[in-house]
Amino acid sequence: MYFHALIPFKPVNPKTRLSCVLDQEEREAFARCMLDDVIGAVLKSGCSATLLCTDPFEHEDALIAVRREPLNDAINWALPQFHCPALIIMADIPLVRAGDIQRLVSTAKDMAIVPGRGGGTNAIFLKKPRCFRADYYGASFLDHMRIAEECGFSVEVIDSYRMSTDMDEKEDLVELLIHGRGKSREFLERLGFALSIEKGRVGVKRRSHEETL
Amino acid sequence: MYFHALIPFKPVNPKTRLSCVLDQEEREAFARCMLDDVIGAVLKSGCSATLLCTDPFEHEDALIAVRREPLNDAINWALPQFHCPALIIMADIPLVRAGDIQRLVSTAKDMAIVPGRGGGTNAIFLKKPRCFRADYYGASFLDHMRIAEECGFSVEVIDSYRMSTDMDEKEDLVELLIHGRGKSREFLERLGFALSIEKGRVGVKRRSHEETL
Repeated sequence: MYFHALIPFKPVNPKTRLSCVLDQEEREAFARCMLDDVIGAVLKSGCSATLLCTDPFEHEDALIAVRREPLNDAINWALPQFHCPALIIMADIPLVRAGDIQRLVSTAKDMAIVPGRGGGTNAIFLKKPRCFRADYYGASFLDHMRIAEECGFSVEVIDSYRMSTDMDEKEDLVELLIHGRGKSREFLERLGFALSIEKGRVGVKRRSHEETL
Repeated sequence: MYFHALIPFKPVNPKTRLSCVLDQEEREAFARCMLDDVIGAVLKSGCSATLLCTDPFEHEDALIAVRREPLNDAINWALPQFHCPALIIMADIPLVRAGDIQRLVSTAKDMAIVPGRGGGTNAIFLKKPRCFRADYYGASFLDHMRIAEECGFSVEVIDSYRMSTDMDEKEDLVELLIHGRGKSREFLERLGFALSIEKGRVGVKRRSHEETL
């Protein structure tokens, strides 16, 4: 089935909760690597991508719409323009693979949704996107389930660890270092990030610049 | 396919990282509810269960082996005794459903593994359990992948948010309050736990005893 993916992206000063381990320039580069991993999976599953960017940005594999309004407004500006099924997918889920997206878009229901950790929504596939509206922030998974009900949509909840895992905080990098395969993992390793195991718990450590040389 | 599930369980003073919101008696009752949810899913998928308990315990739907040695030793005592495929599954993944277990045990590979967050392993299905040995703690997912390779096993990694979500810390309770359907969620709600949304992030709060009356 042909569909078009909508990927919100913040090119400038993204992922501020990672400031404890990455400076602004590194966070921007890391966000770009994660975006590349997500776009890679989207294109591999046979579909096209549009980035909803908060600032001017260029990407050779995607269309760009610069939208300076808040996230929900930007998505709700885009959705009514869709004449084919749409996938709204977050740019910070670098573990996603093309096969995972296929699980989503092959749903028999009107809508498929992937919860993110902490009540969030990491992906929504909509066969009739024009009826829907996004409501991110807070417990958006519950909000989106409610909106789907208002639209009269049947819904499949997709159970996927890889798609539910977003990179918000230092602890999330553990998942990427263990399960990642793409550019984002390479990027972290190049910066000197590695797993650190203390008292049976797994964390990440970053070697100093001197150690990595 | 018939298989037997091995479920490690600590009846006394479990889940100490939840001490900030639950006293010992409540943690013991909560662990028991989670165990019931897991056993429920296991039995519904057509299989039997044995609990590896650190202390004497009774459960009407499972066999019990009291094993006072550390977790790995207890599992590695049990595995060589298996003459049928075995599922090792953690007792603290109350979001698991029978259909999720079916995804695991219907693998075409020699082994299926479900990563837990933070490098852990939440479930392993083994067609030839006698060859394998468990190595929990630390980055056990990577260790188990290595051991599988040593055994010459083909491996399927099962991508499941529900099975990868264990209940270790207060933040994990958010997942249960949003996605749970079983006894564990009911238990938390009965104690006055509810979602709390502040500055766009979702947490849990517990009403005081007076407020719940």
